[in-house]
Amino acid sequence: MGALRRRLTRAGLPGLLVTHPPDVRYLCGFTGSSAALAVTRRTARLFTDGRYTAQAAEEVSAAQVQIASGSPAVAATQWLAAQPGVAMAGFDPARTTVAELARWKSELPSRLRNGFFQAVPAPLVELLRCIKDGDELALMAAAALVGCNLFEHILTVLRPGIAEIEVAAELEHQARMMGAEGMSFETIVASGLRSAMPHGRATSAPLPRRGFVTLDFGIIHKGYCSDMTRTVFLGKPKPEERNAYQAVLEAQETAVNAVASGVSCAEVDEAARGVLRREGLAEAFTHSTGHGVGLEIHEQPRIGAGQATRLQPGMVITIEPGVYLAGKFGIRIEDMVAVTRSGGQVLTPAPKALIEL
Amino acid sequence: MGALRRRLTRAGLPGLLVTHPPDVRYLCGFTGSSAALAVTRRTARLFTDGRYTAQAAEEVSAAQVQIASGSPAVAATQWLAAQPGVAMAGFDPARTTVAELARWKSELPSRLRNGFFQAVPAPLVELLRCIKDGDELALMAAAALVGCNLFEHILTVLRPGIAEIEVAAELEHQARMMGAEGMSFETIVASGLRSAMPHGRATSAPLPRRGFVTLDFGIIHKGYCSDMTRTVFLGKPKPEERNAYQAVLEAQETAVNAVASGVSCAEVDEAARGVLRREGLAEAFTHSTGHGVGLEIHEQPRIGAGQATRLQPGMVITIEPGVYLAGKFGIRIEDMVAVTRSGGQVLTPAPKALIEL
Repeated sequence: MGALRRRLTRAGLPGLLVTHPPDVRYLCGFTGSSAALAVTRRTARLFTDGRYTAQAAEEVSAAQVQIASGSPAVAATQWLAAQPGVAMAGFDPARTTVAELARWKSELPSRLRNGFFQAVPAPLVELLRCIKDGDELALMAAAALVGCNLFEHILTVLRPGIAEIEVAAELEHQARMMGAEGMSFETIVASGLRSAMPHGRATSAPLPRRGFVTLDFGIIHKGYCSDMTRTVFLGKPKPEERNAYQAVLEAQETAVNAVASGVSCAEVDEAARGVLRREGLAEAFTHSTGHGVGLEIHEQPRIGAGQATRLQPGMVITIEPGVYLAGKFGIRIEDMVAVTRSGGQVLTPAPKALIEL
Repeated sequence: MGALRRRLTRAGLPGLLVTHPPDVRYLCGFTGSSAALAVTRRTARLFTDGRYTAQAAEEVSAAQVQIASGSPAVAATQWLAAQPGVAMAGFDPARTTVAELARWKSELPSRLRNGFFQAVPAPLVELLRCIKDGDELALMAAAALVGCNLFEHILTVLRPGIAEIEVAAELEHQARMMGAEGMSFETIVASGLRSAMPHGRATSAPLPRRGFVTLDFGIIHKGYCSDMTRTVFLGKPKPEERNAYQAVLEAQETAVNAVASGVSCAEVDEAARGVLRREGLAEAFTHSTGHGVGLEIHEQPRIGAGQATRLQPGMVITIEPGVYLAGKFGIRIEDMVAVTRSGGQVLTPAPKALIEL
């Protein structure tokens, strides 16, 4: 909260309305879905509704708690506007709908309606969140290791004929048994021709006798997300398949090695993209190289072309180049990497050499 | 798409920009996460990015497909603005962030920047979605029956000492084995004192030797969500516990019986609330009675006090009153109910009389 207040002061803002649930959780610990946190330079107050009375008392620190009878965000707005010295308040335009803003404004005293709410030019809380402290890094490392153990387990399950959805079920069941609170996104199991879909959900399709199987999955551990992808081969790969895999692996490792404090996100993206370009696969790499991960599965920074943000120690990002050849196959390899002073630390040390099953 | 075009005509809108993923899926079948659908009175075009080329070709009907190199919504905006006769376009202010709208506007030719985008006063697509057709009702009935089967199965698992999280794991694994694509929300297993938290996620807490266990869960079947809650008792309930359970059950059944075409949502809410008021439990019922369910777990209409919307045949809603007594216990019972011409059809026919295990 101290770091946030320094940013508010720098931005000339006497107050801030925070409604995005991961931001609220980060600042005061509350995990309920209905919440608004009002922050001034002197105090902070969490507004929630009657369903969360017990939970708020148990979870919230660093803020007072007030149970609102109507919308928590409206109650927070009214409270902020009544604080001495608070003539305006920031809000995050990327996390506020047009309808919400109109509603909040309509509940202000008429003299404040224009000009009270100021869109912050950068997502203040998300930018704080992207630098993880030691406790957060420990949670994320633990989450990532659960992912590695899941991958090791699932290798014993993969075989021709088993449905993609059964693979996902087994993976998710094991995740729970290992203590995960849930999955951080819908598990991707994409086999054979379907591996050419970068976001192919698990379907009832059986795994083929021969072909790639891409597994992209993550778990949630004490609120923090893990994310990893491995692509394995059922049967014996042809030279074209083996070569494409080697190209993706080289692109992935080159980008991982490019991670260091002070390097721009665009440079990391280009490290992967350059390798695939050299191999004639640039067109088949249809997405960006990675993204930040933490309380949300996708957060700041974005590792893509044109992204000037420079990496800083404490950031945790994914490095996940892939190639997708419609009608043939797809391959993606992904690690989570923590940025350190001296480079990058891979949090998902599962094998990456091509596994043939 | 025809029904949407009639609504556009009635609203005087020559075009509409649709970006909320369930709305996009409903209108054209596309299930990817990155999409914008531009609709005019004559045509419709889906914009997505290169990751979804294969998936869009497989899934989309009733719209042309265009792969955008940048943001799909920006490409859709530019396309809409270039259509003859389209001088303005609607957007849903409840599903559009302040930042998105600013971005779209900035990409318009300067003569169109003010006035091109019009906030629609009601969520056009969501209001279409809330009336399910026969195919959708069949999918939702199937999803709800999986829920009932899961409840029957989980009764064989519940026992003192097993962790809430293990119960959730078993339930979710069985769901996958029964063909579910995933869970429609984070499974709630709240036992003992924790049952007083209406939204208590499953934790590592062991089920108590005696006390209530609330199970609130849903699955996704071909995109459609199920939602149900049952509360059972481990051991022998005391009179206060049994009485509270009976009160919630009566409130729930009274509200289910109140469901009929033409009845307002507020009347259904009051049917439940009135029973609990009579039992001195009004203050312990801290949320609304239910909500619409479909492609999203929470959608129109909302079944709460002051909600004037009238039920119509084809709506599917939940009826889920509960009482929460902090430091003691909580109870919630929830069914999914389809509104028919003659009343309501319960889609979740699992037993509701108090089960003692």
